Amino acid sequence: MSYAAFQTEIARINDVLCTINLLGWDQRTMMPAGGIDGRAHQIATLTGIARDMATDPQLAELMDRAEADLPADATLERRAVAQARAEIATLSRIPSRVISEMAELKTRANAAWVAARAANDFATYAPVLERMMGLQREIAAAIGDGGHPYDAMVGMYEPGMTWDRLQSIYGQLKDALVPLIARAKDGPRPRADILTRRYPIPAQKDFGLGMARRMGYDMERGRLDDTVHPFEISFTRGDVRITSRFREDWLPGGLFALWHEAGHGMYEQGIAPEHTRGVFATDLVNLYAVGGASFGMHESQSRLWENRVGRSRRFWALHFGALRDTFPDQLSDVTEDEFWAAVNAVNPSLIRVEADELTYDMHIILRSEIEAGLVAGDIDVADLPGLWAEKMRAYLGVAVPDDTRGVLQDVHWSHGYLGSFPTYTIGNIVSSQLFAVAQADAGVAAGLDTGDYAPLHGWLGENVWRHGRASSRDETLERVTGGPLDPAAYIADLTAKVEALGA
Amino acid sequence: MSYAAFQTEIARINDVLCTINLLGWDQRTMMPAGGIDGRAHQIATLTGIARDMATDPQLAELMDRAEADLPADATLERRAVAQARAEIATLSRIPSRVISEMAELKTRANAAWVAARAANDFATYAPVLERMMGLQREIAAAIGDGGHPYDAMVGMYEPGMTWDRLQSIYGQLKDALVPLIARAKDGPRPRADILTRRYPIPAQKDFGLGMARRMGYDMERGRLDDTVHPFEISFTRGDVRITSRFREDWLPGGLFALWHEAGHGMYEQGIAPEHTRGVFATDLVNLYAVGGASFGMHESQSRLWENRVGRSRRFWALHFGALRDTFPDQLSDVTEDEFWAAVNAVNPSLIRVEADELTYDMHIILRSEIEAGLVAGDIDVADLPGLWAEKMRAYLGVAVPDDTRGVLQDVHWSHGYLGSFPTYTIGNIVSSQLFAVAQADAGVAAGLDTGDYAPLHGWLGENVWRHGRASSRDETLERVTGGPLDPAAYIADLTAKVEALGA
Repeated sequence: MSYAAFQTEIARINDVLCTINLLGWDQRTMMPAGGIDGRAHQIATLTGIARDMATDPQLAELMDRAEADLPADATLERRAVAQARAEIATLSRIPSRVISEMAELKTRANAAWVAARAANDFATYAPVLERMMGLQREIAAAIGDGGHPYDAMVGMYEPGMTWDRLQSIYGQLKDALVPLIARAKDGPRPRADILTRRYPIPAQKDFGLGMARRMGYDMERGRLDDTVHPFEISFTRGDVRITSRFREDWLPGGLFALWHEAGHGMYEQGIAPEHTRGVFATDLVNLYAVGGASFGMHESQSRLWENRVGRSRRFWALHFGALRDTFPDQLSDVTEDEFWAAVNAVNPSLIRVEADELTYDMHIILRSEIEAGLVAGDIDVADLPGLWAEKMRAYLGVAVPDDTRGVLQDVHWSHGYLGSFPTYTIGNIVSSQLFAVAQADAGVAAGLDTGDYAPLHGWLGENVWRHGRASSRDETLERVTGGPLDPAAYIADLTAKVEALGA
Repeated sequence: MSYAAFQTEIARINDVLCTINLLGWDQRTMMPAGGIDGRAHQIATLTGIARDMATDPQLAELMDRAEADLPADATLERRAVAQARAEIATLSRIPSRVISEMAELKTRANAAWVAARAANDFATYAPVLERMMGLQREIAAAIGDGGHPYDAMVGMYEPGMTWDRLQSIYGQLKDALVPLIARAKDGPRPRADILTRRYPIPAQKDFGLGMARRMGYDMERGRLDDTVHPFEISFTRGDVRITSRFREDWLPGGLFALWHEAGHGMYEQGIAPEHTRGVFATDLVNLYAVGGASFGMHESQSRLWENRVGRSRRFWALHFGALRDTFPDQLSDVTEDEFWAAVNAVNPSLIRVEADELTYDMHIILRSEIEAGLVAGDIDVADLPGLWAEKMRAYLGVAVPDDTRGVLQDVHWSHGYLGSFPTYTIGNIVSSQLFAVAQADAGVAAGLDTGDYAPLHGWLGENVWRHGRASSRDETLERVTGGPLDPAAYIADLTAKVEALGA
């Protein structure tokens, strides 16, 4: 009875958070320009309501009573209460003053970032970034447990992850990636021209969405729209929407972004129905309706479909014919091998969001090191441009010509997101760990060999998706792979790809 | 200070209500089928939150303090507090039990209605309708002031309107319309075939939207989508969306619905910016973010643009050429006069939503008489089919062949809307009253003669729209026309049209 009352209240909070997701989705896809002021108020008000509901003493009482009433063997229910309690405790520790100062600062910081980026002038952005870091340090102090301040920030997105553990993983990655990148650079250059021909967008979308549905993305519970920055968002498992960005003269952009977002989407669509509107479909720290266990776990599913499946040699052996049927003129002089090599070309470059699979993580490592230093107070904001250039030279061998293509390229810090970058690399690592085990399943392997993705979809649903937030990233890895987070499988995948590319 | 605190709380309620509007808009335009369960929960939760916020004793205290603190000459501020207090008092008088019973019943009633309509079997729907009427009678008793029970129901949509006053207006209308309809039926028959040719939808939409923008609908603060049932909805004046329904083989359907909804939309876009998120843009009885003074006042603006402007002889003298340029093959053998006559053809028929301008109000009068009798207990649900047939024969001279095309045709009762039908006729009447005064303005008249709608748009903005809910329907009529609600101008418009049609 008391547990049911607890569930009802969590369900109401989830309703509000799903609604905030809709306000955001609409803002990015449908809203006319004139709606922006009203929308900012609506999101702020709903977020305040959700926070008040989550931190209401009556909910705390409900949790106490539920915990007292639940039988000892009601493991999942006990976990739900404990998890909600822990997340709400973190949420509550962030002082209201910091939240409202952050809300006010975000608007100004974002405007300052846009202006500084356009003017290629880091110095005008530095003071507001300095203030943002001050607030981030306050948050870290409020919710941290005495470890490195970056632990608290990363932990908001990736529960339990520490800077110590990240550094060890990054060390392994750097040791492997730096020589691999050098080797790939000396290898054969794939034909780049074939991807920049004129590919009409409706046909790209038909092909891409047809493939996403074949992978298992359910359009009865989804939809696809166009946005500048592709994303996935859900309003319960019954309504999980994705966006992509198609460009006529850059074929892989729209396709791989679509499959990436479809990977996120299948995760949310695959949460068990009984978790709907429950604790295991609600992130009470970030006040976000989501069923994924962590940001990194979520990213592992998008990367798995985008890279492990979509960029594989096997995938294009099966589907290049259909793509050439879609674009017969554009691809008449292209072989399956050339196409596969082109979408896997390694090009160390300045911009993270344009990076290839092999160099991508170096961009993340660089940002994580800087973020950890900033929040700990070991790095001064003023030193960022120089530090950025130094690390880009060391990690990728490229020279940073200006701040716009350097330290000013990402929106994250101006929005107050500090600590989310590492989840991209965690996602890459997990994608390879899970995919290695999935492939060992004969049915999954046979499906991948024939273009039948139902077995892989089913395997991921059973082993990962259905649990929602009822199984943490580490628990899932332990259960599925028998071990902890480990970059070995990912490094092996990247090494094999570089070898296959002939380097 | 206390007034500012009151404003802040109303603004937060308005944010929640705008968000509920978005949940509804999305459900009707974008949501995949799988989202329906989650969406029902989200709307129910947000509506409960809005009701709790509006009826919170702390808000009542804020209103007390604001009233005490405001200077006597702060007329608009005092009105805002008094209006919020009165609306919240009405809202509070509806017992929570009735609200939750109604919410539960709506779902079942709607399903029963859909099934009964498909099976043409009123008897299976009667018991649930009976229960719905029981709840409606409870609401009427709870919020009524001792007059006719229908007063309370109509008053939710049209504050201050009474059944007594409606009956007097309906008497005048019947006296005028019944002979006019008979006369029109004996007059010349317009060419009907020309409207059912093949008109490609994208061209219809281009022409229709181009004209709506020319009327003054602002697409920077709006958008147009397709839905089965056209509607308008707003999320502050900065984001006011409309929908229409285009059919390739019925040209007037999409065009006039679009201009109708654009009329609603321009009203919302025209509310003064200072009313944004305030009492005068919030309906606290129906918990609905809207800036129109009443449902009837809102309908007057849609009808004005649809009928007084869009179905006028003058309008097609100016724009038929552009329509023929859009559809040169389809309209090559059609004259301007034939087209105008065709979109004004009078055809007494069975279905309200397909009715022409002259017969439309008879459908409303019939429904109002039945609703008043039902809520007062003077009419039994079981007698409805017979009563419906009798009135249709008397008012429109048509024989009702079955319940599906009779008493089962409207969705309203199954949704629990009782008392909203009269607002359609009030809207028609007000549209003619306001348009008569507007046309007396030389600038407006010159604009209408040349296809420049900016003067009419400006006149309505100044005299009607900008006030939002700070000027009631009766206050607006008194200020603009110097008198009360009066069907004379509307009857004159309809009479003149019948005469112009050659009857």
